[in-house]
Amino acid sequence: METESAKIHLSVDCTVLGFDGERLEVLLIRRTGVEGGEEFHDMKLPGSVIVDGEELDDAARRVLTELTGLKNVPLTQFHAFGSPDRTKDPRDIHWLEATQQMHVGRTVTIGYMALVKIGRSIMGDMEGTEALWVPVDKLPPLAFDHNQIIAEAVKMLRTLASMDPSMLYALMPRKFTVTQLRNLYEVVFGARLDPANFYKKMVQMPYIVPLEEREKGVAHRAARYYRFDKNTYNKTRI
Amino acid sequence: METESAKIHLSVDCTVLGFDGERLEVLLIRRTGVEGGEEFHDMKLPGSVIVDGEELDDAARRVLTELTGLKNVPLTQFHAFGSPDRTKDPRDIHWLEATQQMHVGRTVTIGYMALVKIGRSIMGDMEGTEALWVPVDKLPPLAFDHNQIIAEAVKMLRTLASMDPSMLYALMPRKFTVTQLRNLYEVVFGARLDPANFYKKMVQMPYIVPLEEREKGVAHRAARYYRFDKNTYNKTRI
Repeated sequence: METESAKIHLSVDCTVLGFDGERLEVLLIRRTGVEGGEEFHDMKLPGSVIVDGEELDDAARRVLTELTGLKNVPLTQFHAFGSPDRTKDPRDIHWLEATQQMHVGRTVTIGYMALVKIGRSIMGDMEGTEALWVPVDKLPPLAFDHNQIIAEAVKMLRTLASMDPSMLYALMPRKFTVTQLRNLYEVVFGARLDPANFYKKMVQMPYIVPLEEREKGVAHRAARYYRFDKNTYNKTRI
Repeated sequence: METESAKIHLSVDCTVLGFDGERLEVLLIRRTGVEGGEEFHDMKLPGSVIVDGEELDDAARRVLTELTGLKNVPLTQFHAFGSPDRTKDPRDIHWLEATQQMHVGRTVTIGYMALVKIGRSIMGDMEGTEALWVPVDKLPPLAFDHNQIIAEAVKMLRTLASMDPSMLYALMPRKFTVTQLRNLYEVVFGARLDPANFYKKMVQMPYIVPLEEREKGVAHRAARYYRFDKNTYNKTRI
């Protein structure tokens, strides 16, 4: 006897977050589907149904590389999304059925997240896929519950960064200005910060090291670059 | 066409951790199965296959209440366990098939964890189930990959508590001695702490409030009780 609970499919979805100096961005891939005889175009997270016998972590790594070309990204499992409502849109069901060649019942997805430097080159291995960075605060409606997954990933980033701010430097370029760092704090914590106070606090941190280099080719006064020193940071905490 | 990936079952498992003043304990339920015509007895985490149409969080709460009687426990999803190897023991497969009346292929379980005060009464709603506290460092081989799930939950507790030690007080009795608190730090962080140093640090924390009350009926010198003040703790952090 098979019970209803047997009709479950499992997928992984990767929320890769980057920061362009002003805004938090998420890596999405374009999707083309057909609904009611009409082609439609939208976007989704890089993700896929898992392959038979595949470990979850391996599936997440495989899918991200296949769809975006990114390798050696520190993907972390952060939440499973399994609401029965997440596959209620017929466009999503039909797209899954067409691409995966299977009937779709309930689909549970394991959400992975990663923080990367946005300068990394993005290029999918699979023909016809296109990956692109999209600002988190300007997302259109995405496939499935992917808007919700991204919102949860940003919430998780906020929670973790409030406990361990050093993780934010994974998002920063190797050299950054005070303004860029303040922008990141503002977008992650969702609050305006006083520039003068932020500067005063920041330069007191021994792990934020000033460089001799300054911005080039800017209209305003060229700002100094800084770098994050992980070793010094670790010594400031017990 | 159904692909292999369709044959997946989904369950939830709850790792409820408590602290008895000396050791970290986990709430398990007894399991009786039959293998090769012989009855066997072992233990497992409170868990179950999810019901059709049920939200994951609801499933975790339902299962914990049914099997242990615990209600209003702050369960948090912490990790999905989906290795193809986790259901390779025939005893587990046959037990699942007998109790769930279904064929068992790959089973992915969503792990939930909770920290509770160990004094709470434990009593399952379902006939024939028995829940009990077992020290985490004295676990026998458990059903499925439940030893691994518990190890991961303890690791998660350690990571989170190193960032936010206030969460540890969910495990402590409302009033506690310095020794009990030091014991908890030792078991969570897996390191011996010097009693004199620990005491000196602890009494400096404004959120650890001394009470007038002392231990009763102990052979050694009766130790003072303290309580954790969450409001004061929150004010010590920005």
